[in-house]
Amino acid sequence: MGKAHSNAWLAAPRHFNVSFKPVLKAITSLDPAVSEKFAANWGYESVEPDWRKLVERRDIDVIAVCSHTVNHHEVVIAAAEAGKHIFCEKPCALSSAQAKEMAEAADKAGVLHYLNHNYRRVPAVKFAKQLIDEGKIGEIYHWRGTYLQDWIMDPNFPLTWQLQKETAGAGPHYDLNSHSVDIARYLVGEIESVSAMMKTFIKKRPLPGADATAFKSGTSEASANMGDVTVDDAAFMVASFENGALGAFEASRFAGGRKNYNYFEIYGSKGSLTFDNERMNELGYCTFDDPENVQGFRTIPVSLGSHPYMANWWAPAHIIGYGNTFVHAVVDFLDALESGNKITPNLWDGFKIMQTLEAGLLSAKEGRLVKVSEI
Amino acid sequence: MGKAHSNAWLAAPRHFNVSFKPVLKAITSLDPAVSEKFAANWGYESVEPDWRKLVERRDIDVIAVCSHTVNHHEVVIAAAEAGKHIFCEKPCALSSAQAKEMAEAADKAGVLHYLNHNYRRVPAVKFAKQLIDEGKIGEIYHWRGTYLQDWIMDPNFPLTWQLQKETAGAGPHYDLNSHSVDIARYLVGEIESVSAMMKTFIKKRPLPGADATAFKSGTSEASANMGDVTVDDAAFMVASFENGALGAFEASRFAGGRKNYNYFEIYGSKGSLTFDNERMNELGYCTFDDPENVQGFRTIPVSLGSHPYMANWWAPAHIIGYGNTFVHAVVDFLDALESGNKITPNLWDGFKIMQTLEAGLLSAKEGRLVKVSEI
Amino acid sequence: MGKAHSNAWLAAPRHFNVSFKPVLKAITSLDPAVSEKFAANWGYESVEPDWRKLVERRDIDVIAVCSHTVNHHEVVIAAAEAGKHIFCEKPCALSSAQAKEMAEAADKAGVLHYLNHNYRRVPAVKFAKQLIDEGKIGEIYHWRGTYLQDWIMDPNFPLTWQLQKETAGAGPHYDLNSHSVDIARYLVGEIESVSAMMKTFIKKRPLPGADATAFKSGTSEASANMGDVTVDDAAFMVASFENGALGAFEASRFAGGRKNYNYFEIYGSKGSLTFDNERMNELGYCTFDDPENVQGFRTIPVSLGSHPYMANWWAPAHIIGYGNTFVHAVVDFLDALESGNKITPNLWDGFKIMQTLEAGLLSAKEGRLVKVSEI
Amino acid sequence: MGKAHSNAWLAAPRHFNVSFKPVLKAITSLDPAVSEKFAANWGYESVEPDWRKLVERRDIDVIAVCSHTVNHHEVVIAAAEAGKHIFCEKPCALSSAQAKEMAEAADKAGVLHYLNHNYRRVPAVKFAKQLIDEGKIGEIYHWRGTYLQDWIMDPNFPLTWQLQKETAGAGPHYDLNSHSVDIARYLVGEIESVSAMMKTFIKKRPLPGADATAFKSGTSEASANMGDVTVDDAAFMVASFENGALGAFEASRFAGGRKNYNYFEIYGSKGSLTFDNERMNELGYCTFDDPENVQGFRTIPVSLGSHPYMANWWAPAHIIGYGNTFVHAVVDFLDALESGNKITPNLWDGFKIMQTLEAGLLSAKEGRLVKVSEI
Repeated sequence: MGKAHSNAWLAAPRHFNVSFKPVLKAITSLDPAVSEKFAANWGYESVEPDWRKLVERRDIDVIAVCSHTVNHHEVVIAAAEAGKHIFCEKPCALSSAQAKEMAEAADKAGVLHYLNHNYRRVPAVKFAKQLIDEGKIGEIYHWRGTYLQDWIMDPNFPLTWQLQKETAGAGPHYDLNSHSVDIARYLVGEIESVSAMMKTFIKKRPLPGADATAFKSGTSEASANMGDVTVDDAAFMVASFENGALGAFEASRFAGGRKNYNYFEIYGSKGSLTFDNERMNELGYCTFDDPENVQGFRTIPVSLGSHPYMANWWAPAHIIGYGNTFVHAVVDFLDALESGNKITPNLWDGFKIMQTLEAGLLSAKEGRLVKVSEI
Repeated sequence: MGKAHSNAWLAAPRHFNVSFKPVLKAITSLDPAVSEKFAANWGYESVEPDWRKLVERRDIDVIAVCSHTVNHHEVVIAAAEAGKHIFCEKPCALSSAQAKEMAEAADKAGVLHYLNHNYRRVPAVKFAKQLIDEGKIGEIYHWRGTYLQDWIMDPNFPLTWQLQKETAGAGPHYDLNSHSVDIARYLVGEIESVSAMMKTFIKKRPLPGADATAFKSGTSEASANMGDVTVDDAAFMVASFENGALGAFEASRFAGGRKNYNYFEIYGSKGSLTFDNERMNELGYCTFDDPENVQGFRTIPVSLGSHPYMANWWAPAHIIGYGNTFVHAVVDFLDALESGNKITPNLWDGFKIMQTLEAGLLSAKEGRLVKVSEI
Repeated sequence: MGKAHSNAWLAAPRHFNVSFKPVLKAITSLDPAVSEKFAANWGYESVEPDWRKLVERRDIDVIAVCSHTVNHHEVVIAAAEAGKHIFCEKPCALSSAQAKEMAEAADKAGVLHYLNHNYRRVPAVKFAKQLIDEGKIGEIYHWRGTYLQDWIMDPNFPLTWQLQKETAGAGPHYDLNSHSVDIARYLVGEIESVSAMMKTFIKKRPLPGADATAFKSGTSEASANMGDVTVDDAAFMVASFENGALGAFEASRFAGGRKNYNYFEIYGSKGSLTFDNERMNELGYCTFDDPENVQGFRTIPVSLGSHPYMANWWAPAHIIGYGNTFVHAVVDFLDALESGNKITPNLWDGFKIMQTLEAGLLSAKEGRLVKVSEI
Repeated sequence: MGKAHSNAWLAAPRHFNVSFKPVLKAITSLDPAVSEKFAANWGYESVEPDWRKLVERRDIDVIAVCSHTVNHHEVVIAAAEAGKHIFCEKPCALSSAQAKEMAEAADKAGVLHYLNHNYRRVPAVKFAKQLIDEGKIGEIYHWRGTYLQDWIMDPNFPLTWQLQKETAGAGPHYDLNSHSVDIARYLVGEIESVSAMMKTFIKKRPLPGADATAFKSGTSEASANMGDVTVDDAAFMVASFENGALGAFEASRFAGGRKNYNYFEIYGSKGSLTFDNERMNELGYCTFDDPENVQGFRTIPVSLGSHPYMANWWAPAHIIGYGNTFVHAVVDFLDALESGNKITPNLWDGFKIMQTLEAGLLSAKEGRLVKVSEI
């Protein structure tokens, strides 16, 4: 994740016209040797072993938080209290209570805060927002957001931090549904109530070896001892939006063949939209403005100069990738710093997302519909 | 619907090797003039204005029930009591209680009974069943069945029988989710519990003119008076299967651009399947037997002689359509008559489907998870 | 092929409003036992072992010619001379000279003649014609027609009649490119000149056992003796149309994974079209009438009542298949009989198609561009 | 183009383990003001107004040539004679004669030379090469390479340098078919002979205003005076490969809706491949190793750590874009500098590509098959 961030801070002023040119002042991590190597590679001016010192350094204006979710609360509040602007990775926190404290601290300090649900800044997603704002979709009836992966299907995949409640809060319900809820709030509106079901298919896994990381097959590093998986492997949820739309969410790490399948469909009174993040340079669109006999879902190549962000990249229809979306986030963050305007999603969006996800957890636990306002 | 049935009874013995050659003995409908014309066109030997006489005629062995759902209960029980074998359209009935009585009557009479959820007999769906039975998908983790249409999105579409609870029972939750629940039970297994949400987006509609039918735009025939829509326009549901799988169902008549989008995805421990009824000659398949670097969803053209039913149609890869699936149903029905074996889905399957759908209705009404066994 | 025809003659008056109701009077084939069985199955009134007697029977008005291509010339001319209307399978003949004689004989006899390039009567293809005629595509710049199969890739597939010049005339260049040239002439216009290359990848094959047929794997029936393949296995061709369009044709029986991939793309000054016969209920369409930022290829479900032929089949978006297209041909043939108008494609179209294909053969042989008018 | 190159030289050592760390020493262009701004943005140490001085500077080891094609010959030879390693944009030159002289000069000077047909370094294309080299496709029967665009369809698009023979050599036949021929030679083998047809649909266009550039709509900048288009608007070609494969090439700037549609299909005795550059993170693959009833084209997400180059980017299935492929080229170039090995494609590949394309021009002009060896 540090790679994508560092790359973005460097690339933003080269590809876009921004007022501030970021300087990579300092880096910290759990392992000073890793920090040194990373700093040398990306050109950070210094390494700061103690993150508390880093957030207090007077030569630093912005703190980018890429640590594990479990640390977000403490780091963000410390950074805010030190008067630093905050660029925070998702998911926001382990709970809505944490998220609220983070947002309050940032507001109190008067700093800019941004929560990096980067998919909002995929050109096709921002273009979807534009079409909706222009009224092209009309009144929205339906949302479905599926975020499917398959990286822990092997029962020998070890019990990494993502599979434990105290470090991750929840499984794909937090990790993946947080993205979907963010996009749903961005494109459709606020969620009023949810009914959810969750499953843990593999209930015990080998404890990880010292070096087990999320995206490596765990077999070789797994120890002989087993531990309990304490989060969901999959979370399905139906939802009612405040504006009357009916929605569905599906997050799973047990959907074989789906590597990073972040997909949504939106149906409205005047048109429909579909999006697949693995084909992020395309947007599906059906409009009832077309005569009935030529209506159909079209695939728009969202890669032309007339589409959001794209004029700053390559010639038309030369596609961009995941890394570029981080550049867009940095550009918009720098613009907000310049203008003094807020940027979204921010920590308050993080709070609303966590509220919605907690409503889902409670619904699954108690077998009932839960209003988001209950949380 | 009578067209598809009549065509199938005539075509079955011509394309398949069956023991019985159906004879179209008699037809009835609400309008004798329509019956006469229909009988002449399809070669029925006679018209019987009174359906009760028809079901009692001694020269008739099989009753095909294509009337509105509201009549199924009465007709099927009368036919069973008259000793006729039953080939009944879906959905089975207005309630699980009705369906149970129908199934009991048929069993008591010792007649063969079949419920025409015809999508089970799409070659690609039957082939999916074959792959699952062969263990190719492994333990099933996920099901999603979406059945989306858009034919009543126009607020001026009139209040036809499909939009009234007393004649239709429910909206797309019965009409469309009944198909999805049938396929889910066929391919995944029994459903244990559900949590559902439903919406009615257009709450009042013009009362229909005398000639209003489901698939005509209602504008011209709509009267000036309005009536209440008393069924759902959309029904979303999450479900837990007895075997531990987690599933989702979505049925809507407000999904613009989706005409007859009966689509499912199944994810298992060894592979995954996808199916789109508008491309019914294809099956999506991903298998973990493939080396990881060449894994991906493949599109199988289920149109070869080695696929179910296809050897009896055209040269390889010459596709079939909706009408052909009714022929498959008739062929299997005739085979069951010959062998004395049961055929599925039958009225008991109808009962189980209705139970599940009623659980969904109750869940949506009470805002809680409902076990199918509660119904 | 006899199945598809017989089915169509029976189905046409049931699904469509036609003036004449066809009666299946008599059938002939190379094997009287086969004829008897086929006649019984399909309800033909009689079997006529001698085809010459059949074409002269006074109780017969129409001759449907489904025999091997090598026999078309003799049968069609005899039928025409006997005053019978002609419904002839494709490809038309072994040469343009034969085709010309057939067309002249039919015109001289004043009979209706039709050549069954059935893909013209796929609703999506006829709808493409409608869009072109309405000017939606504008001036046409490009055509590409690919017709790819893989059924003879096994080197042990035997030397059936399709692989011998004297019985088939050519390989996929005749069998498959004939369809593509027919569609290209229908949708784009007359072809002026061609440059072609052809290949025979497997030059010797086992002689067929007595029972070898085209679509069976030949291994078991192949004899130990080998014979020469005397036709092309693949034929690629670029073409210039009289209206200035530039086109490409590709026909192959060595395109693995392509079972019956009859696909075309058309690019014009105002829009573009794509069609895939294995998804025959869809048409791809891109129009420049759309604003640039929402332009894209849409997938039109050509399965609504507003599309050609479809109102006579099932409810909207219930797809049709290969067999249905033969019904459309019979309906249009019967309409032409009623109206006295000509129908296309007919034997003169067959002549033009054969001319174009022969130009391709000559081009490949002599390594030069050949004008169709040279033939 | 300078953007993509500069970005790549900077990014290569950050994302990949390379021996040399590039330093951006100097830049030149036709406009010093543009150079100054570009240098400041990308961190070039200096601007050198005279390109001849730049290629002779002793502190420079590598010359990246991104100028118009018309200048490649002079610049590359000067750079080679100055002992600089060469990283040259495509197409190589205006003719095979030029390309040969360039290659000879580079070889004589003993410098490393690379021709940037960057699509070879798309992970999916390199993975296709791997599958072919592993024998997964078997003997190759067919190639089709289509490269379709639509950016000059407006008749008011001005007569930019790309539309004039003296500056561009040819139209899409050079610009686009050069890419396709490069990929075809890489994946299939050497081309033996070609038959081509070309068209110029718009024969006169407005002379460009001073600021007319390729990818801007020309309307506003077009002057009132018209000039002749002297290159092709579209070039279609059939080809015979030395290994017996039969191929097709299509290049056009008049294919509406196709923005940058660089697409190929390969059919072999053991499997087939398809690739679409606008979905460059995917590869289509069909293998006959699969049982016949589950054969089909699968979509491989070529975005995992096990695929070429991808382990150095983001987490699995987070896609990359056009810009990343330039990084791969730089990485491989630096590796070749370190190892002393050659890199492909290089100027000799450029020569072979130009030979093939010239054979196409000659074929179109003379209306005959032309052997590449004739050139």
